[in-house]
Amino acid sequence: MKLLFLGTGAGMPSRQRNVSAIALRLHEERGTFWLFDCGEGTQHQMLRSPLKLSKLEKLLITHLHGDHLYGLPGLLTTRSNQGGESPLDIYGPPGIRAFVDTVLKISDARVNFPIRIREVETGEIFRDEQFAVFAGKLDHRVACFGYRVVEADRPGTLNHEKLRSLGIPPGPIYGRIKNGEDVRLPDGTVLRSADFVGPPERGRIVAILGDTRPCRAAVELARNADVVVHEATFDDSLSGQARQFFHSTAGQAAELARRAGAKRLVLTHISSRYQEGGVHVLLDQARRVFPETEVADDFREIDIPRKKVGLSTTSGDIRQC
Amino acid sequence: MKLLFLGTGAGMPSRQRNVSAIALRLHEERGTFWLFDCGEGTQHQMLRSPLKLSKLEKLLITHLHGDHLYGLPGLLTTRSNQGGESPLDIYGPPGIRAFVDTVLKISDARVNFPIRIREVETGEIFRDEQFAVFAGKLDHRVACFGYRVVEADRPGTLNHEKLRSLGIPPGPIYGRIKNGEDVRLPDGTVLRSADFVGPPERGRIVAILGDTRPCRAAVELARNADVVVHEATFDDSLSGQARQFFHSTAGQAAELARRAGAKRLVLTHISSRYQEGGVHVLLDQARRVFPETEVADDFREIDIPRKKVGLSTTSGDIRQC
Repeated sequence: MKLLFLGTGAGMPSRQRNVSAIALRLHEERGTFWLFDCGEGTQHQMLRSPLKLSKLEKLLITHLHGDHLYGLPGLLTTRSNQGGESPLDIYGPPGIRAFVDTVLKISDARVNFPIRIREVETGEIFRDEQFAVFAGKLDHRVACFGYRVVEADRPGTLNHEKLRSLGIPPGPIYGRIKNGEDVRLPDGTVLRSADFVGPPERGRIVAILGDTRPCRAAVELARNADVVVHEATFDDSLSGQARQFFHSTAGQAAELARRAGAKRLVLTHISSRYQEGGVHVLLDQARRVFPETEVADDFREIDIPRKKVGLSTTSGDIRQC
Repeated sequence: MKLLFLGTGAGMPSRQRNVSAIALRLHEERGTFWLFDCGEGTQHQMLRSPLKLSKLEKLLITHLHGDHLYGLPGLLTTRSNQGGESPLDIYGPPGIRAFVDTVLKISDARVNFPIRIREVETGEIFRDEQFAVFAGKLDHRVACFGYRVVEADRPGTLNHEKLRSLGIPPGPIYGRIKNGEDVRLPDGTVLRSADFVGPPERGRIVAILGDTRPCRAAVELARNADVVVHEATFDDSLSGQARQFFHSTAGQAAELARRAGAKRLVLTHISSRYQEGGVHVLLDQARRVFPETEVADDFREIDIPRKKVGLSTTSGDIRQC
């Protein structure tokens, strides 16, 4: 699982940063990915990345401001032109359906795959065996959501070698032990699952938040996350402007990550006033509060490895928090 | 007067060509320009050009297909963000107003300059002292226009030196002669205007046509033009596809330029199937019919110089043909 930042700038494109878009790469081998926000030029950025539009499965829009949205119609038509036929799920605030429908209609666009649009509210918006996604309403000038992606825990690996060395032949008993069952053999020996199954792998949690003032919903979305992606439109000296325009400062983003008990923070939505060296101001302010911070750049990829950890359950359930 | 091609590809962006946009640079010193079509990423292309969005005066959309249109909302908001305050005139087919209004409204966009939208029909759509613009309806799958920009002729330069050498003191008489009047002096001498005024400069004619099958309207728009910009989505071997999808081949574009008596043809809207060397196929096919042909590339600039020519009138009127 990797994050690939396609656009990390605020408001309008600059030579250094395109407007917002973040890909969450789910399966490197299959190439599938989800996209969070789709500012103008996102499809152009993809041309310079390993991403293939046909492998895009979900598009989650945080809010309907142009710098997060205007790349959407072109991305849809290009996905179709390139032969993409699999359905695409689009999630976003109320209004996203009217936007897509109106623009495609006026421009007589022909899209050869099913588009399934869901206007979201706070709460669970998607769940399958592998992932659950939760939306939370943030504090912005218009309706704006953050998304929390929670991966299912995975049971540990069964030690076949050890079972075989005890003379246990492969069979249904292996499955029972792997699933956490302690098994009594005909001779009275008890095989404890914990002795043959490695530590479970905890599912990863990624929180990708839209534009927002500091708010409680953001903390909840980011709770214990492996990675939080948060806007830092302003540095701390401009907290008044941040508040006025419903944005956050770098320090506020860091404070959110700290309170949420997150492991790592990535700042994005960087104003063009912070060129090159200026970005260090944001980084320094954030790291004073939350050391595990970095600032995203266009095309930066961030790996999110699975970790083997001691869990109280190996059930594979998807935890919300 | 110069053309600056910002996007010369068909349908969707590629690494070599962005989707359609062409700037007509009117006054190098003032930096003002008009823009014809505005595919997604046009504002990004401008970042890599000498154009300043605040100097954009008119935006003329040929048709509402996405590859000619989807860059428009972002261009408007960025022009506003950058402090552009002067009014912007937008011309386009019916539907352009609904597109702009709906997208700006749904995305809660704040644009700090007056946007004047005019849905065009065939005929004159604009006229001031310097330019007239005519629209003509082409033959495409949706309503699509070509635009003919006609510059006013300019009277020749008055030869002050020659008048003074005859002892004529500067005064109102100079203006009358410059304006083409023959003047009789008190001593009976007649000063013929033509003897003191250089050759007039003919106004330039530029025809920028949208996507189209070969059609009569295209010929009329391109009549005697200094430069015709015409699509060449296909090469001549694919004339069946060109017809099916309401497009032209390179040879058809050249035939149009020849029939119209144009001086120069620039091919654009090049399909991504013609990479690098492939473009020569288009060029060769066109040049066989109309030698003064070139193929546009992104960021290519084409100078359109004024020419001093013998005109039957020096009136400064704007000729339609």
